[in-house]
Amino acid sequence: MTPGPERGLFITFEGIDGSGKSTQCRLLAETLQAEGREVVLTREPGGSPGAEEIRRLVLEGDPDKWSAETEILLFTAARRDHLERTIEPALVAGKVVICDRFADSTRMYQGLSRGDLRATVDQLHDLMIGREPDLTILIDMDPATGLSRAKGRQGTEERFEDFGLSLQEKMRAGFLALAQEFPDRFRVLDGDRALDTVAQDVLSQALAALSPEGHPV
Amino acid sequence: MTPGPERGLFITFEGIDGSGKSTQCRLLAETLQAEGREVVLTREPGGSPGAEEIRRLVLEGDPDKWSAETEILLFTAARRDHLERTIEPALVAGKVVICDRFADSTRMYQGLSRGDLRATVDQLHDLMIGREPDLTILIDMDPATGLSRAKGRQGTEERFEDFGLSLQEKMRAGFLALAQEFPDRFRVLDGDRALDTVAQDVLSQALAALSPEGHPV
Repeated sequence: MTPGPERGLFITFEGIDGSGKSTQCRLLAETLQAEGREVVLTREPGGSPGAEEIRRLVLEGDPDKWSAETEILLFTAARRDHLERTIEPALVAGKVVICDRFADSTRMYQGLSRGDLRATVDQLHDLMIGREPDLTILIDMDPATGLSRAKGRQGTEERFEDFGLSLQEKMRAGFLALAQEFPDRFRVLDGDRALDTVAQDVLSQALAALSPEGHPV
Repeated sequence: MTPGPERGLFITFEGIDGSGKSTQCRLLAETLQAEGREVVLTREPGGSPGAEEIRRLVLEGDPDKWSAETEILLFTAARRDHLERTIEPALVAGKVVICDRFADSTRMYQGLSRGDLRATVDQLHDLMIGREPDLTILIDMDPATGLSRAKGRQGTEERFEDFGLSLQEKMRAGFLALAQEFPDRFRVLDGDRALDTVAQDVLSQALAALSPEGHPV
């Protein structure tokens, strides 16, 4: 994997709710932009006008509004739109795409938390998405800290935070297992440190991935 | 296939736009209800509150709003919700479910009209739906007549009618081919006849399927 500056790089951030992913995404985008790189900062679910409409459909309303299977289909539809309209065009234009959550979040939240649907999630991904990030930063942190942070900024999209601490613990373990499953692209960073310290680690990983030699294993 | 009155029967209607499917669905529902049967009359895309929301997302707006692949995912999400919330509970309760369009419409409209996506449609169906109707009535008719009827009642959901006569002709041939592919459940009726004559044929097929001996081949 040797992406040079002439082609884009697809970086995703994963982690439990409240892990500081969104802040780290923004800081990395600002730093790379200050260095003169073209950056697209985006998020899932959402990231394109159509996908944002699907996001609203899924995240607002009664937690039992959709079954796990329907939810997986809606997230996959949103991801397909996001990929076609936002991510792929930016990568073709040589930009760095930084995305807050991607398919790994579906593997965790829908694949593990609501029945053993991981195989279904994977089959659907292979059939309709078929794309993995070049680099995935997992911000690993204490589930209780993450949960209290997530609850502090809770808005109308309450569906996933409502599942509580036991889910956060299960998700943390699940993300760490996923990092072991895809060691080539995953980098696990300790999120229980000062924001700037984490940001420095994030930048090092991104720059390594952007260098002509690719990122170190 | 020998469904008695004690279990439900799942009947779908298919055909090109303007073939009179919706009218025939309604007439069959009224006749069966008058005979004392419990009937659920429904339609796709839509048929449950969540699926109706997805329907609005897909059918309103710019025809290029979604790619064929995203559209297939959204229709499959709507179908999954419709199946879980409306169709299966009714069948379990022994009711007759009459549905205006189902998976065969996706096989035709998305599988044939917008790129060779039939294989994708089938894989997605097997993975996330896995259910075929007990009886499918195909109302076959002249594509030009169908198109002029469809245009006469055109509202805000203009997306599919906009593709014109050549698509209608292709769809008619596609539906006939589909009927040959699934001969056990398809019955092809000539829709270029008086409404009452077609309705009589529809009723005969439905009653045959509802009889303890099953419907004749």
